[in-house]
Amino acid sequence: MKIEIINIGDEILIGQVINTNAAWMAEELNRNGFKAFQFTVISDSREHILQALEDALNRADVVLISGGLGPTKDDITKETICEFFDTKLIFSEEAFQNIETLFSRRGYTVTEVNRKQAELPESCISLPNRLGTARGMLFERRTKEEGRRTKDEGRGTKDEGRETKKLQTANCKLQTVFIFLPGVPFEMKDMFTREVIPRLKERFAPQAIYHKTVLTQGKGESFIADILEDWENNLPEHIKLAYLPQPGIVRLRLSTWGSEEDVIKQEVESEISKLHQLIPELIFGFDNDTLESIVGQLLMQHKQTLSIAESATGGYIAHLVTSLSGSSAWFQGSVVAYSNRSKEDILYVKRDTLESHGAVSEQVALEMALGARGRFRTDYAIATTGIAGPSGETPDKPVGTFWIGIATPDGVFAKHFLFGDNRERNIRRTAVTALNLLRKEILTRPNPY
Amino acid sequence: MKIEIINIGDEILIGQVINTNAAWMAEELNRNGFKAFQFTVISDSREHILQALEDALNRADVVLISGGLGPTKDDITKETICEFFDTKLIFSEEAFQNIETLFSRRGYTVTEVNRKQAELPESCISLPNRLGTARGMLFERRTKEEGRRTKDEGRGTKDEGRETKKLQTANCKLQTVFIFLPGVPFEMKDMFTREVIPRLKERFAPQAIYHKTVLTQGKGESFIADILEDWENNLPEHIKLAYLPQPGIVRLRLSTWGSEEDVIKQEVESEISKLHQLIPELIFGFDNDTLESIVGQLLMQHKQTLSIAESATGGYIAHLVTSLSGSSAWFQGSVVAYSNRSKEDILYVKRDTLESHGAVSEQVALEMALGARGRFRTDYAIATTGIAGPSGETPDKPVGTFWIGIATPDGVFAKHFLFGDNRERNIRRTAVTALNLLRKEILTRPNPY
Repeated sequence: MKIEIINIGDEILIGQVINTNAAWMAEELNRNGFKAFQFTVISDSREHILQALEDALNRADVVLISGGLGPTKDDITKETICEFFDTKLIFSEEAFQNIETLFSRRGYTVTEVNRKQAELPESCISLPNRLGTARGMLFERRTKEEGRRTKDEGRGTKDEGRETKKLQTANCKLQTVFIFLPGVPFEMKDMFTREVIPRLKERFAPQAIYHKTVLTQGKGESFIADILEDWENNLPEHIKLAYLPQPGIVRLRLSTWGSEEDVIKQEVESEISKLHQLIPELIFGFDNDTLESIVGQLLMQHKQTLSIAESATGGYIAHLVTSLSGSSAWFQGSVVAYSNRSKEDILYVKRDTLESHGAVSEQVALEMALGARGRFRTDYAIATTGIAGPSGETPDKPVGTFWIGIATPDGVFAKHFLFGDNRERNIRRTAVTALNLLRKEILTRPNPY
Repeated sequence: MKIEIINIGDEILIGQVINTNAAWMAEELNRNGFKAFQFTVISDSREHILQALEDALNRADVVLISGGLGPTKDDITKETICEFFDTKLIFSEEAFQNIETLFSRRGYTVTEVNRKQAELPESCISLPNRLGTARGMLFERRTKEEGRRTKDEGRGTKDEGRETKKLQTANCKLQTVFIFLPGVPFEMKDMFTREVIPRLKERFAPQAIYHKTVLTQGKGESFIADILEDWENNLPEHIKLAYLPQPGIVRLRLSTWGSEEDVIKQEVESEISKLHQLIPELIFGFDNDTLESIVGQLLMQHKQTLSIAESATGGYIAHLVTSLSGSSAWFQGSVVAYSNRSKEDILYVKRDTLESHGAVSEQVALEMALGARGRFRTDYAIATTGIAGPSGETPDKPVGTFWIGIATPDGVFAKHFLFGDNRERNIRRTAVTALNLLRKEILTRPNPY
C-alpha cells in the first residue's frame, strides 16, 4: 500500500514556510503502522494541482493532501478538486453551523469569507474540523488503467462489463483514496488523528513497523561510523541503519518492517544491545528522548533542582527546559547574563575575574555556575560563556570558543570546547553539550531516594 | 525554466527530520531570480531514486538533489547515480587530498570510510565541498523524447542525424542538468551558494521575481481578510496574494514575475501602500524582519537598552533576542523566574503580591517588569507570566491566560491575553505579542538622538 503526501502552497516552494506538515503526517502514519513513500510539494496553481493528483492517482493507493483550504482568495484548491473529481460545490448547512458555533465560542462574528468555506464538493465525504473553519474532504477515484481495463473487458458482453465495474467500485483496493486537509498545522493534526488514521486502519491492514533511534552526543558521524563498521556490516539484510546528524548530536536509526511485531522488535533490540557495548559513553537516550527530558527525569527521581546561568546560549537552554510541561517541578530558573554588569550584579561574578580573565574563561564559567546555584538555591547549575560568532573573536579566543560550567552539590568544574563558525549551530551544540555534561554528572551520584 | 528539488532520505519520509534543505534552497533560488516548481522527497532506495530521476528528467530543466552522500552505509545514492548516468565510480586523488586537508585542520585522522567518499562517478563534474567530505556532482542528460527525436530525424540521412545530435548536445537548454549535493545542511548551503547558483546564472537567464511580505501582529487571518476584501478583489491579475499565519503573526505575501524588475517592483509597492492604509496598526515590518530585529534596531537608534523577566515564556524571548548577532549592544539580560521564590529573590516581586494575586496576575507582571528594569538597569523591560498549559489551570485562570508587563523610562503597564490550549503556540504567541507591545511603546517616544 503506497501513501503519498502532497502539500500545496507557493509559500513552501519559495522557502518562506518549512514543510512541517509532511513530517508530522509521516510520523503519525508510522506510529500507526503505515509508511509514506513520497512527499510532493506543488504550487497553488490549477494545472499543477491537476497534474499532481493525476500522477498520484497512478502510483499511490492513498493520497493525503494538505493546504489551499483557507478562507482567503489564494485558495483555488476547492475549485480544482471539483474539476478533478467531476463534481460541483454546494453550500452545506451543517458545515456553516459548525463555523457559527466555533466563532460564537470565541466571540467572533461570521464574515462573508467564512460563508464560502461552507461550500463543499457534492461528491465528497466531508470531515469535521473541530478547531477551524475549513472542513476536510474524502474522495475515491479509480485509476485510468482500472477504468480502461473495465472498459476493455466490457467490450465482450455489455453485461459482463457492467458487472466488473460494479465489483471494482465495491472493492476499495482498486480505488485510490484522496483526503484533503487544511494546511494550518494544529487544525490538520487534530483532523488527521481523529478522522484520517481511523479510516486508514479500517480500510487497510497496517504493517508491523519497528523503528528505534539511538541518540548519541559528543562525537561526529564518521568517528562513530568507524567504530561501528563491523557491527554494521553484520546487520541482518532487512534491518536498515541511518545516521542522522544534528548540531552536537548524532542519531542512529534502525528500521525494519515485517508481519510480526514481536519478532522484528526483538531483532532490533538485540542489535541495539550489541551497539550499546561499542559506544556506551556516547549514548544518552532513545527515540523521542531529549537531553532536557532525560535530565528532567533524573532530577525528578532524585528530587533535585536545576538553575542556569546563560551568556553564550542566551536563554536557549532555559527555553528547551521550559518547553517541557511540568518542568517547574525541578527547574527554578535561569539568568541570561548577557552583559558583564549583569554577571557581576546578579550572578556575583567578581569584577576582578572578569577583568583579568575575560568573560569567556574557565574562571567566569565556574563563578557563573556557582552564582546561579546560590541565587536560585538549587542542587545543580549549568553555566555557559563563549563566542557564538560571527563577531567577538579575540587573538587567543576564536569564534566557537566556549566554556561550560557545572555546579553540583559538592563542587564545580568547567570544560573548554571549540565549536565552529555558525552562531545558531554553536548555540545548539553548547546547549546539548552542557545538558549532557550535567546528565553524566547526575548519574555519578546515587539516587538519594 | 523548471527547477525541481529532490531530497533523498528515509528519515524525512518517516517524519524524523524536517525537510529544511528544500526550503533553504528554494529561498536561495528565489533571491537569485529562479523559482522552484516542485519539491519531491523520496526514499534511500535504488528503484525510487531511479524513478524520481527519470520523472524529473521528463519535466524539469534543472534537478537539484540533496542527501545520500554521507560516509556511512545507508548511502546508496552514488552507486545508483552511476547506473542512471551510465558511468562508474573511480577514485579521485584530488577529492581524497581535500578530505585529508580538512581532517588534519580539525586534528582528525582519515578513516577507511572517508576513503570511499573520494570515489566519484567518472562522467560528472565534481564540485568541491569546503566544509565536509562529500563532494557535489553535476551531470547533464537529454530526455528520452529528445533522444528519440534525434534518432527519428536521423533516419532520413545518417549525417543529418549526427549533426542534429551534436547541435543538441551543444545546446544546454535541451539537456536537463542534475546537481547532487550533500544532505548535511551547512555543507549543502555553502556549496549551493558557491557552486550551484553561479552555474545556474551562467546557463539560464534569471527572471525578474519580486516578492514582498507584509508582517502583521495582533489579529487572525479571517479578520484581516475581511478588511482587505475590496483591495484584494482589485489586485492586478498577475500579482498573487498569500496569507501565511504563524502563532501570533499573519504574513501577507505579494508575488509577481515579469521581465522588468523595476516595473513589477513598482506595482507591488504601490499595492502595499494601499494595504498599509487599511491596517496600519497591525503592520510591524516586511520580508525577513522579525519583531526582535525591529525592536533591536529601534533600541540601537535610541541608544536604549532592554531586559526581560520571563516566567511563562521560559527564556524564549531571550533566545529570540540573542539569536541576533550584535544584540549585546542593547540587550542586558533576562531572568527566567520559573519559581515564585526566584520572582521574589531576583526580581523583587513582593511575597504579599504573589500570595494575594497569584503568580499569574496583573500585579505580578507589573512588579516583574519593574524588577527586571531595576536589576539590569535598562530603559525598558518586558515581563511575562501565564499558564502555558497543558496543566496549571485554576477556576478563574484557564490555560492560555497570560499577563504581559512592559516597564518604560516613565512607567509600567500590563495587558491581559487569552490564547489557546497548545503550550508551544502559547509560548510563541506571548513572545511576539510582548515584543510588539514593546515596539509600539518605543515608537510613542521621540528618538532622543
